Amino acid sequence: MAKDFVESTHQENHTCQIALMPAGRKGKVPRGSNLLKVAEELGVELESICGGRQTCGKCQVVVEEGHFPKHGIASSADHLTPPTAREIEYSQEHRLQGRRLACAAEVLGDVLISVPEESQARKQVIAKAASERTIEIDPAVRQVYVEVRPPDLSDPSGDWERLQEALEAQWDLKGLSMDSGVLATLQSDLREGNFAVTVNIWQEREVLRVLPGYHEGLYGLAVDIGSTTIVAHLCDLRTGAVLATQAAMNPQVRYGEDLMSRVSYANSEPQGLSRLHRGIIRTLNELAEKATQDAGLIPEDILDAVIVGNPVMHHLFLGIHPRELGSAPFAPAVSAALDLKARDLGLNFHPASRLHTLPLIAGHVGADNVAVLIAEAPDEQDEVTLIVDVGTNAEIVLGNRQRLLAASSPTGPAFEGAQITHGQRAAPGAIERVRIDPQTLEPRIKVIGYDAWIIPGADLPHEARATGICGSGIIEAVAELFLAGIIQPDGLFDASVAERSPRVRYQGRTGEYVLADESLTATGLPVVVTQNDIRAIQLAKAALYAGTKLLMNHWGAERVDQVLLAGAFGSFISPFHAMVLGLIPDCKLEKVMAVGNAAGDGARFALLNRTLRLKAAGLARWVEHVSTPLESSFQDEFVAALGLPHARDPFPTLQAFLPKPSASAKQGHRNRIREKHQASL
Amino acid sequence: MAKDFVESTHQENHTCQIALMPAGRKGKVPRGSNLLKVAEELGVELESICGGRQTCGKCQVVVEEGHFPKHGIASSADHLTPPTAREIEYSQEHRLQGRRLACAAEVLGDVLISVPEESQARKQVIAKAASERTIEIDPAVRQVYVEVRPPDLSDPSGDWERLQEALEAQWDLKGLSMDSGVLATLQSDLREGNFAVTVNIWQEREVLRVLPGYHEGLYGLAVDIGSTTIVAHLCDLRTGAVLATQAAMNPQVRYGEDLMSRVSYANSEPQGLSRLHRGIIRTLNELAEKATQDAGLIPEDILDAVIVGNPVMHHLFLGIHPRELGSAPFAPAVSAALDLKARDLGLNFHPASRLHTLPLIAGHVGADNVAVLIAEAPDEQDEVTLIVDVGTNAEIVLGNRQRLLAASSPTGPAFEGAQITHGQRAAPGAIERVRIDPQTLEPRIKVIGYDAWIIPGADLPHEARATGICGSGIIEAVAELFLAGIIQPDGLFDASVAERSPRVRYQGRTGEYVLADESLTATGLPVVVTQNDIRAIQLAKAALYAGTKLLMNHWGAERVDQVLLAGAFGSFISPFHAMVLGLIPDCKLEKVMAVGNAAGDGARFALLNRTLRLKAAGLARWVEHVSTPLESSFQDEFVAALGLPHARDPFPTLQAFLPKPSASAKQGHRNRIREKHQASL
Repeated sequence: MAKDFVESTHQENHTCQIALMPAGRKGKVPRGSNLLKVAEELGVELESICGGRQTCGKCQVVVEEGHFPKHGIASSADHLTPPTAREIEYSQEHRLQGRRLACAAEVLGDVLISVPEESQARKQVIAKAASERTIEIDPAVRQVYVEVRPPDLSDPSGDWERLQEALEAQWDLKGLSMDSGVLATLQSDLREGNFAVTVNIWQEREVLRVLPGYHEGLYGLAVDIGSTTIVAHLCDLRTGAVLATQAAMNPQVRYGEDLMSRVSYANSEPQGLSRLHRGIIRTLNELAEKATQDAGLIPEDILDAVIVGNPVMHHLFLGIHPRELGSAPFAPAVSAALDLKARDLGLNFHPASRLHTLPLIAGHVGADNVAVLIAEAPDEQDEVTLIVDVGTNAEIVLGNRQRLLAASSPTGPAFEGAQITHGQRAAPGAIERVRIDPQTLEPRIKVIGYDAWIIPGADLPHEARATGICGSGIIEAVAELFLAGIIQPDGLFDASVAERSPRVRYQGRTGEYVLADESLTATGLPVVVTQNDIRAIQLAKAALYAGTKLLMNHWGAERVDQVLLAGAFGSFISPFHAMVLGLIPDCKLEKVMAVGNAAGDGARFALLNRTLRLKAAGLARWVEHVSTPLESSFQDEFVAALGLPHARDPFPTLQAFLPKPSASAKQGHRNRIREKHQASL
Repeated sequence: MAKDFVESTHQENHTCQIALMPAGRKGKVPRGSNLLKVAEELGVELESICGGRQTCGKCQVVVEEGHFPKHGIASSADHLTPPTAREIEYSQEHRLQGRRLACAAEVLGDVLISVPEESQARKQVIAKAASERTIEIDPAVRQVYVEVRPPDLSDPSGDWERLQEALEAQWDLKGLSMDSGVLATLQSDLREGNFAVTVNIWQEREVLRVLPGYHEGLYGLAVDIGSTTIVAHLCDLRTGAVLATQAAMNPQVRYGEDLMSRVSYANSEPQGLSRLHRGIIRTLNELAEKATQDAGLIPEDILDAVIVGNPVMHHLFLGIHPRELGSAPFAPAVSAALDLKARDLGLNFHPASRLHTLPLIAGHVGADNVAVLIAEAPDEQDEVTLIVDVGTNAEIVLGNRQRLLAASSPTGPAFEGAQITHGQRAAPGAIERVRIDPQTLEPRIKVIGYDAWIIPGADLPHEARATGICGSGIIEAVAELFLAGIIQPDGLFDASVAERSPRVRYQGRTGEYVLADESLTATGLPVVVTQNDIRAIQLAKAALYAGTKLLMNHWGAERVDQVLLAGAFGSFISPFHAMVLGLIPDCKLEKVMAVGNAAGDGARFALLNRTLRLKAAGLARWVEHVSTPLESSFQDEFVAALGLPHARDPFPTLQAFLPKPSASAKQGHRNRIREKHQASL
């Protein structure tokens, strides 16, 4: 009994209590244990690039003053070994102000440690301000610091073998291969760094880069190749921060506004494929150049990239002829995710840079759609969610954690301001908001670059003058024209209204509405919305709605619980006006949200977290795709969707707002639309 | 009991006896079994590219007439299903003359099948006529024919996914990646081949090439980059045949004859490394161009390559600066084997072509040495084997299955005809054989390109006239001068002999021997062997012998059981003269063999059989390397080895042939050599 007690006391003297906040992990550890290792053993992984060599300073912790909850310690600072010379040097240089480097401290007594957020490995970061979604930072490319054994006459092993040995011993990285580019400079890098180097490793498999000495900074590029716009986000792969965003028009636009005309171009022109492919590569190189410049970097700093796009963009980016995507059975050349070398595609990133393309769901449901799923995660929700990524080609996703359906719908470029008389891209001068007084029929407008509503007759500075209408502007304009009764549910101008306002004018038999008269425009010519503009918007929104409706029918959803509006200009669409237009089905208005460039966000998430790439592969197989053009009911749904907001579907949410057409006008509307549509076939 | 018998008879009726010759495998198989599968189950793997689709015709077998040993079948041909329409078509087209395609036949009764050698998979081929060594054909790149499911509206999978599916189902190849070059043409290749394609796969991992339809022909290049000569063998990877061999001078020779002067050049010239590297790549591209042309192919037909060379050549080929190889601790940048893409090094093979470099043993014992081990396999022998690869840098290997030692020795280019007054490369006009009559002191010579011994005063056609002396010629000349007593064991001309023959002349105090007077030479000037030439050969052979001796001392070998002379001109050295010169230690003369370009052979073997690459990796780690210049006894051994054949080692094999020097001459010889050597330090 006495002996037992002695032994237990003895043990007590040689173990220490440790508590780690805010994780709340506690444990007993042997006296003399290294704090970095202790934390790891207790499940609190601390950030470390140098692997405990007191070099990177990432494992900073705060030794809390006050009392250890159970044991009442006055100053727990004494319960760690004093700072080492190297730590003191680092501490002074970087003004640590009392913080300790966990890797430099050994536990001598009971301590209460607080781990600041920036010291936590695999940090959860808010990846998207709007949705506050967090993702764990776990990029495909890692950065580690290693100290390599110098060569020795008695040991004939090569630099590469000794580097491999160090990576295995210090980071548990085994069986690594290397990019052939590493070969040429490995020996000089090792010697320049006095056999200490910073190494970048892709997927625990391939060494991409070796830099002499200790080095921070790890960057990647997330790219969404849209039919009309290419957006690139330069990201810090350690913090998740977006350092710069650059966008450019897709240079393929000159060969055709929509996807099918680009496929035709590739089919008919001998140099077509090559021009379309090289155009994207050139633009990506330019975007990388500009984005890295914005961040004080160079394109060679980019070590990883994730690319998304619809199937045609995906194929053209990869240099694959899109011909098979242009006709049934719409077989892609490859639908799986690909891991490539950026250099093999002619991209001027770091010569060893990796490149990942997200998978396609089908020949007309692309990697951009997968990216939207990654960004918005409808598969993790109970609510039946509709995601509409509005663009020249609209991506539609419907469902929840039980089942997800996807389709794409060729809406054409009307929503992006093309095919609209005074349409233009969203840029300063573009009318982006429209309100029309139902009594006076007078408009108010908002112009990009001028932060106030503009009314007719206002005295405007030059920068406030309108140059045209962008996508969100034309959507609001058409919706407001309908709400004000200027156009009828069939989209035609109501001739009787023309008598009430000089703004409604007739050119021959077709009407137009003067949205901004000459005094408000930069050109000195009025900006108008014509009957043709309205028709273009009707066709585009009908394609979108019909696609959505087919998915709802397949899913068996009578209505949707929420609607996420994505796309380059998705953030700018007014949910109310989108619903008045019948671009989206009926839903509680507060459940309609703009989520911005969800495809670009998905690419960014997959860049920052490699597990999401695995999830993407799984989703791409799990999601059911619906070939909208092949569905027998598509045409019927399309025709019905031409009406405002819809020829037959009820919109209870809009009940209070919609004008009440007479029964005869309603019938006439339907007939006219049918005749028109059938004539156009 | 009766029931049992019935069942047994019943069983007997539904199984067939099958015997496969020459393997002698026998078994019972169910009636109706496919012959190709049956053979495989019995352990006789038949060649097949098409995987049983009656397309490639590789699985031909002979249905033997006569009697099945045990059962006495009159005509076993009836015991297979009759030829299918496709087989008959193939049979007529390729004149099979009674052979059957195993994949097209089902077993109906007892049969005796003979498998011709060309139908056996993983054929053993004689890889080397001289040694009759056989190796199994199992290259790193495979070629298979697959039929891919065409795309289908109901299935959104890509061409690549359906190809993967077919490769898994038909060839059990799982989880394949693809070279990015495959992407661009996959869909057109599949459609051109009506969804049947021939696919090349590297190491069961990566698809390198897809060709429409059924395709034969699979080629690789084995390259030995020597300091002076680069040799490339173009091989058929299915049959193992060498289709063409091309050699070229190493273009680096202009920057320095020996390795150290090239390292100096890279160190001192800013563009040095790049010039040395690009020179090799350019030459390899030229060799590939010529070799493929010889075989009616193009460089793009090359899908795999194996490269060997000494460490400096290895590094320069890879674009790595050789500076670290030039001084202690002689650390290579990489010593492990590398798997690269040929294109990444600028080689114009197939864009997806693979390239494998054999590993180094140490910073001065290279991949060429490993290749020699692969070619000659001393690790599989009981006899203590010495392998000497004679070149500008000599590679030495000593040992047997218990233990192997390796070293390299900088012999310099004397053995290749450089540093010799009338030295030249082995080419028409070079004196390659020499005999000197010990009585008359008159020579006989043989000249490359003229197939007879030439004696002084002969009336010669122009092509028989000597232009100089090549490596094997100078070795024989010096050995014969010694055997005839014209030079002494210390290498100096014996002044007393000059009185006996006008061929021995003195220029001042140094002698020379007229090997071919002006009437026998193309230049009209005599070809002579000078005292300096003899000195150069002595220094070179002493370096080689001293290296050998150090390895013998390390190993604990008093003498060696056999000597293999390798190297570009190893085949041409007379074993007897090499021993008289003291280039190799004493050994039974019939156990001294020329094995040709063993390094090139090793590269070729590793190209044809991927298991040998694994063996090479193991050998490179297992072999002990000896740093000859760092050994304290090297200098002593070197000095002693300057004498002919050696100052102290006995050569019992040569007892009967060597001149008997007086005791005093012997002593004087030793002293002079020591003085000379010490003066030169």
